[in-house]
Amino acid sequence: MAYNLLKGKKGIIFGALNEQSIAWKVAQRAVEEGAEIILSNAPIALRMGELNKLAEQCNAPVIGADVTNTDDIVNLFTKSQEHFGGGVDFILHSIGMSVNVRKGISYPENNYDFTHKGLDISSLSLHRVLQTAMKMDAINEWGSVLALTYIAAQRVFPDYNDMADNKAYLESIARNFGYYYGTKKHVRINTVSQSPTRTTAGSGVKGFDGFINYAEKMSPLGNASADQCADYCVTLFSDLTKMVTMQNLFHDGGFSFTGVTQAVIEQMEK
Amino acid sequence: MAYNLLKGKKGIIFGALNEQSIAWKVAQRAVEEGAEIILSNAPIALRMGELNKLAEQCNAPVIGADVTNTDDIVNLFTKSQEHFGGGVDFILHSIGMSVNVRKGISYPENNYDFTHKGLDISSLSLHRVLQTAMKMDAINEWGSVLALTYIAAQRVFPDYNDMADNKAYLESIARNFGYYYGTKKHVRINTVSQSPTRTTAGSGVKGFDGFINYAEKMSPLGNASADQCADYCVTLFSDLTKMVTMQNLFHDGGFSFTGVTQAVIEQMEK
Amino acid sequence: MAYNLLKGKKGIIFGALNEQSIAWKVAQRAVEEGAEIILSNAPIALRMGELNKLAEQCNAPVIGADVTNTDDIVNLFTKSQEHFGGGVDFILHSIGMSVNVRKGISYPENNYDFTHKGLDISSLSLHRVLQTAMKMDAINEWGSVLALTYIAAQRVFPDYNDMADNKAYLESIARNFGYYYGTKKHVRINTVSQSPTRTTAGSGVKGFDGFINYAEKMSPLGNASADQCADYCVTLFSDLTKMVTMQNLFHDGGFSFTGVTQAVIEQMEK
Amino acid sequence: MAYNLLKGKKGIIFGALNEQSIAWKVAQRAVEEGAEIILSNAPIALRMGELNKLAEQCNAPVIGADVTNTDDIVNLFTKSQEHFGGGVDFILHSIGMSVNVRKGISYPENNYDFTHKGLDISSLSLHRVLQTAMKMDAINEWGSVLALTYIAAQRVFPDYNDMADNKAYLESIARNFGYYYGTKKHVRINTVSQSPTRTTAGSGVKGFDGFINYAEKMSPLGNASADQCADYCVTLFSDLTKMVTMQNLFHDGGFSFTGVTQAVIEQMEK
Repeated sequence: MAYNLLKGKKGIIFGALNEQSIAWKVAQRAVEEGAEIILSNAPIALRMGELNKLAEQCNAPVIGADVTNTDDIVNLFTKSQEHFGGGVDFILHSIGMSVNVRKGISYPENNYDFTHKGLDISSLSLHRVLQTAMKMDAINEWGSVLALTYIAAQRVFPDYNDMADNKAYLESIARNFGYYYGTKKHVRINTVSQSPTRTTAGSGVKGFDGFINYAEKMSPLGNASADQCADYCVTLFSDLTKMVTMQNLFHDGGFSFTGVTQAVIEQMEK
Repeated sequence: MAYNLLKGKKGIIFGALNEQSIAWKVAQRAVEEGAEIILSNAPIALRMGELNKLAEQCNAPVIGADVTNTDDIVNLFTKSQEHFGGGVDFILHSIGMSVNVRKGISYPENNYDFTHKGLDISSLSLHRVLQTAMKMDAINEWGSVLALTYIAAQRVFPDYNDMADNKAYLESIARNFGYYYGTKKHVRINTVSQSPTRTTAGSGVKGFDGFINYAEKMSPLGNASADQCADYCVTLFSDLTKMVTMQNLFHDGGFSFTGVTQAVIEQMEK
Repeated sequence: MAYNLLKGKKGIIFGALNEQSIAWKVAQRAVEEGAEIILSNAPIALRMGELNKLAEQCNAPVIGADVTNTDDIVNLFTKSQEHFGGGVDFILHSIGMSVNVRKGISYPENNYDFTHKGLDISSLSLHRVLQTAMKMDAINEWGSVLALTYIAAQRVFPDYNDMADNKAYLESIARNFGYYYGTKKHVRINTVSQSPTRTTAGSGVKGFDGFINYAEKMSPLGNASADQCADYCVTLFSDLTKMVTMQNLFHDGGFSFTGVTQAVIEQMEK
Repeated sequence: MAYNLLKGKKGIIFGALNEQSIAWKVAQRAVEEGAEIILSNAPIALRMGELNKLAEQCNAPVIGADVTNTDDIVNLFTKSQEHFGGGVDFILHSIGMSVNVRKGISYPENNYDFTHKGLDISSLSLHRVLQTAMKMDAINEWGSVLALTYIAAQRVFPDYNDMADNKAYLESIARNFGYYYGTKKHVRINTVSQSPTRTTAGSGVKGFDGFINYAEKMSPLGNASADQCADYCVTLFSDLTKMVTMQNLFHDGGFSFTGVTQAVIEQMEK
């Protein structure tokens, strides 16, 4: 069901790779709600992924950008300003990658070159996008920026490795840049802390299955799906949530505020 | 602007007193968004207030209920089930009163009879409403319950007195009942922590003016208004936020995650 | 091992019932560290318990007090001022009781008379002790007050019932009274959030065994014992922690900041 | 006053520069409490500072180490193991530097090479020290590691710039490494979030004076001094706090849980 919640709004969606991606779902829902969008992803993802399918569905241009490269982001916003004839109203940052995780390294043994690279892609990319946007005045008054995160930023989930630190850093950027962009132009910046989701990125984490089952049993409403996450993001891009900023918003069926459930207790007694 | 976000939904709004009330605004916005509602308030508030004006605007029955009295709540849900021909989809709890505050008593000198009375009205009322609803099966699957709260539940604001403790207790009820009602019937329960607002209730707090100015200067987006709060509540009642539960959601222009602002620093240097 | 950390200090310990009690251990450790103490508990606990044994060991007077009765607390502080020839330097509040838990009622079905009674004993008792102490000027400059709490104040543990709400309220009192007593007389007030512990009180909670095993597996250092809690309390009563106030301090082997452990994941896969 | 709290314990103190440094005070207090220590700092700080004076007082070797260089840390632990004839029992990490701050750049305009460099020194240094220690088995069972942090990791303080993000990352490392080192060898890892302090590092932050006055007025007990911080650290290195881990512990006179004080309200009304 659609409500025209984003009618007349323009946005940029980073990070759609395939139909499992949360960003893919957000793109679809944003368009259903009346938005016009631009899709962006890393050049390598553009080659691997099926983004053109989504682009067609959404009638959206695809503009590649390496988010660790300022020139690429300048180029993206330049083209976005041309395409839309002005600034954007919302941005989704759904970007994360840890070389240490990919290489199967354990947290205490991380390689710091990999750590820096992961931070650059997963966290500083948000700062870079916002810095460039601010310089180019590419986000409209009362615009809304969302970045996807995970509760490992607050509590330890062993196999999540340095993505935990990256997400803590990402949430800090949202908070700090939220202050500056809020003061300057009423742009709000939040993170959405989503249930573990069977995306290409999620599935790459070791022990992901035990993980997702545990989360399901620990969530009074069960794990939130990618579709439900897209619904939630749409409300946060809309004009109905203008005063929500600098927050980390859990979208997880109650996981984050549940200490234990009956279902987990029973499993422990087996 | 309206989106039909609540089309076909039925709800109960507790606590509208006059045009300044947040509950008043929520009632109006819910109806604009397509909901049918019932208005409820304490018998004494019905006599003092201008609720009939709102009831007419919203084409809503008014059913008085003393929320400290289970019989009254049973009566309310009985009539609500008759009126709607079934359960409700959302409830707003905007109820709070401290006798200690009214009497101008300072926190360390509180009278405990007053404290119990304030807790009964401000906090246990939420439990009572939910307990009664659960027994009578008066909330539909995936229903949404919101209670208004204030950041004094997390940090000390001297003049807020025992309302701080009441709000901490209220948020705990939302969390705990959210577990049970979520597990049983997918009902979600959250609190919205709103900026200080010039309502009849807010204005009763001593030093409210210094308070609200400070909050304004400490919020990158400024204080959130009652109208904006109503917008936000509407999203949380809608089907787009089904997996958000057991949370305290700040709606305060960034106040809660701001340590200090340039504006406050400048004032400190005067 | 003892360090004379509390040499010359006087304190009141509420809530020692038997050798399993945390308060019992704190009393012993405080005396080992050079403090003089007074033991207090409810009249009924004095009859049931073995407090005289502890009193002898600690060379401490026992002064009964119903903490829901202001007169009793006035009497306690009057005698304490006589006994010590002045104010006290520390107080331990280890008091909690829920009638709803005792009766085996489930959270959504709680009886509100029982709820009020539990709050009076478990939470308002801290306010009452502090209010009386402040009026009688019964705590010395830079005194330290501790109350024991549990993480159910932050996250849901189903069988903990309304003790969760009581602990949330208790922590709010610590915070709020900490502001007033800190501003007035540099008295600091904190809560210690302890691992589940096999005390008489703890064991009364339904499903406690599943609970404590789960906590053990979820804590990188294992559950903290009552003895270790006593060690920690001693540091918080000492002059080395004068600027720690208005906080909830976890003493739980890492439970509260662990999202999941390898041990729990393995159990989930069984 | 000294208690022999650290009798027989060995430790490494990173980051003492001059008499204002918190690390300087911690070193002195640790030795007063019976510990033997090694002092470490960056080669450039060794040249600038007055560390030899402290080394003499404390009868402690000085071993230079660039904490961004693994070889240097290996060398430090090799010498430490020789000097002490075994592992250490505690480590203080009091290290932080932001090139962006030094250059007077504003947060939205940060240079990312500087950002990476600051992260390497301020945050990854903790990971590097722990990684090296774990590989070399250089910390004893139940050892205690502390890192100093600031509340800018939770709430925005504009002029703190990317040190806010660095501290958020640092706290995340403490949490995550605390899980691994706790599980493996019962080593506990915490951060202490200290009041703004007039150290060489603190004074480098723009607008520091307005900042520290504001903090003083917002803290019911006033700002915590470097000496008091040293007292607190000593308790956290001692055997009395063995089950405290993976936490961020505020040491700030109540600042972090105060929403506003009477003193600030009065200033706002000027």
